[in-house]
Amino acid sequence: MATVSRGNGPHVLRQLNAAAVLDALRKAGAPVRVADLMARTGLTRPTVTQALSLLETEGWTVASPDETASRMGRPAQLVRFKADAGHVLGVDVGPHKVLAIVADLDGTVIAEQRADTSAATVGVEVMAIAKATMLDALHQARVDPQKLFSVALGTPGVVDAGRGTVLLAPSIPGWASIPIVKELSGQFGGPIFIENDVNLAALAEQSHQAVESTDTMVLVQWGVRIGAGIMIGGRLHRGAASAAGEVGFIDLAETPTPAGNLGAFERTVGSEAIAELAATRAGTTNRADRPSASAVLTAAANGDPAALEVLDEIAARFARGIAPMLMILDPDLVVIGGAVARGGPVLLDAVNRHLQARAMLPAQLRLSELGDRAVTLGAVRLALNDVQERLFAPEAFANRA
Amino acid sequence: MATVSRGNGPHVLRQLNAAAVLDALRKAGAPVRVADLMARTGLTRPTVTQALSLLETEGWTVASPDETASRMGRPAQLVRFKADAGHVLGVDVGPHKVLAIVADLDGTVIAEQRADTSAATVGVEVMAIAKATMLDALHQARVDPQKLFSVALGTPGVVDAGRGTVLLAPSIPGWASIPIVKELSGQFGGPIFIENDVNLAALAEQSHQAVESTDTMVLVQWGVRIGAGIMIGGRLHRGAASAAGEVGFIDLAETPTPAGNLGAFERTVGSEAIAELAATRAGTTNRADRPSASAVLTAAANGDPAALEVLDEIAARFARGIAPMLMILDPDLVVIGGAVARGGPVLLDAVNRHLQARAMLPAQLRLSELGDRAVTLGAVRLALNDVQERLFAPEAFANRA
Repeated sequence: MATVSRGNGPHVLRQLNAAAVLDALRKAGAPVRVADLMARTGLTRPTVTQALSLLETEGWTVASPDETASRMGRPAQLVRFKADAGHVLGVDVGPHKVLAIVADLDGTVIAEQRADTSAATVGVEVMAIAKATMLDALHQARVDPQKLFSVALGTPGVVDAGRGTVLLAPSIPGWASIPIVKELSGQFGGPIFIENDVNLAALAEQSHQAVESTDTMVLVQWGVRIGAGIMIGGRLHRGAASAAGEVGFIDLAETPTPAGNLGAFERTVGSEAIAELAATRAGTTNRADRPSASAVLTAAANGDPAALEVLDEIAARFARGIAPMLMILDPDLVVIGGAVARGGPVLLDAVNRHLQARAMLPAQLRLSELGDRAVTLGAVRLALNDVQERLFAPEAFANRA
Repeated sequence: MATVSRGNGPHVLRQLNAAAVLDALRKAGAPVRVADLMARTGLTRPTVTQALSLLETEGWTVASPDETASRMGRPAQLVRFKADAGHVLGVDVGPHKVLAIVADLDGTVIAEQRADTSAATVGVEVMAIAKATMLDALHQARVDPQKLFSVALGTPGVVDAGRGTVLLAPSIPGWASIPIVKELSGQFGGPIFIENDVNLAALAEQSHQAVESTDTMVLVQWGVRIGAGIMIGGRLHRGAASAAGEVGFIDLAETPTPAGNLGAFERTVGSEAIAELAATRAGTTNRADRPSASAVLTAAANGDPAALEVLDEIAARFARGIAPMLMILDPDLVVIGGAVARGGPVLLDAVNRHLQARAMLPAQLRLSELGDRAVTLGAVRLALNDVQERLFAPEAFANRA
């Protein structure tokens, strides 16, 4: 094969060696000595030194004297990856809030900015709040918007990544008509990605739960709406029309449920269904007196018998709707996120109990620990993955040769 | 990176060039000239000639004079891939039949042997029939069992590929206790693989339907039992416990259905449910007078109104149970196989109609054209994939250096 010998010149080799040294430096996570880098890469001292010189010129590394080293012999140096050589921006844009996070190349959060979008009635207003919040976060982090390495935005709905817009987003009126990526591309540097919010939450969970790259993990985001993000073999499963994981619209009824703003499954187990069931059980007819889903979950966590009964019924309905996904995907791990996850261990136990009566095999179930930052953290992860592929992969280095 | 220059000696290059030439020959599908191989590989004439000499020594190619070439100048030669340089064996072992197929390295069927297993009451009897049928097919093909390149066996149930056995197989009593791979390994050459039968049918469909390697395809095997084989990005999705796609056990009822030999979904739409519904509708109380599912499907295809009504009700139930899979996976293509697929276009139309009322997006639905040979053809495909990876991949060639 002709490709084997193609582009194998000394210049390409230098770049590949630099990529290997940079990768070792990033994985080390702390300042290391040249000897450590030789051990980690299997490269000789002259090759590592040459690579470090290239990396320092390009601004990826910082060298400092090794204070702990013996004063005898040649002065030892410590080298570290310059995580603040660049920054990424992740943002979650939804019908209730915007949350933007600026992170360095290690994924360390540098600044975080939040805004309420509940009062915004149309997509353009939400877009304006999103832009302002993103700029605020960057200002706080003292990062020039034009110098960002990569930007990722999470949004509800079915995303058309090719056109940089959203196809279907019933939760934000007018959102689907906004060319999101185009709107942002003048103001922010780096490529701009948009992705379904639940998919981003799944990306964040994969990283947080330290899921193996070969595993199948499902994140079920459970709030007013319900969606699933599916990771198979380390990659998001998006589906033919980017509509995979839209479990909120699963309809189990014998006669198809008429279409509505909420899907059939969301209508039976989402936050509003929890509030409604609690009200019905308590005989509350006045809508103003209805307890919130959050209040019901807190009461259940505190052992309130009536709230526990509501939780049990909701868990039974949830298990009925989610069991098909377990039979179809046979995942290694299912994580429950979203507002309802605040139900905690009581909720998890009830869901597990009802799933046992339905699923062929026991499922490994966990609650998310990321709270309402999951989508934004996933956006940061997506932007970092882009930086990794575009700037740090050996092929990317070699292509610059 | 040290790996770039490692193992890059002339011997390895020769093997890689030979792999490239062999790949071009196999893809050509017909005898070609050296000039064609130069164009297809981008290699020089001396390199192609050297590669061909190596391949002929190893027995992968045959050269013949080019009769169509001009008599002037050097005598041109035609070279072809020797597809009968080796053979693979695929076999489907089930509670009703064994079907074994011997194929050459192009996948051309050389011999096919079938046996009935309905009378076998336990796994060991089925195993004996399977072995005899496999040997019969090889005898017919005049292929020495010890000289097989690869063998793959499809079986119902949850497969433990690591131990070469089956974990759960309710349809063949005692089958799960047989160390299948061990039982066969003395008598047949090449590695022996076992795989879930529906997964193999999915592999066969992917190849037959010419599905893109990036697509998500689901094969729903619909007979007495119902299972799904899921191909994502060109690979089988097996799941954490190799139990993915066990849709026959999906239970949509509000109160969990008690466990049985058949799963809840199979009980409502499988072949037996079709026969039962037809009998109930016709007021047939005597079990002996009950029409078979096959008779009902034929009658419906011929326009019989009562049979069409049964088909419509079954299609409605099928759509209800299968819609969650469409919402979860958002596949590019769904293929319906198995005995019920004989219902033909009338069945497909009914399923499509009922799915439209349930799924968010229209699904691309097709009927399988492979009949009851799907599993065996998938086994042949699996064995050929193994040969491809183990013997023909450039890395495999290089490793022999």
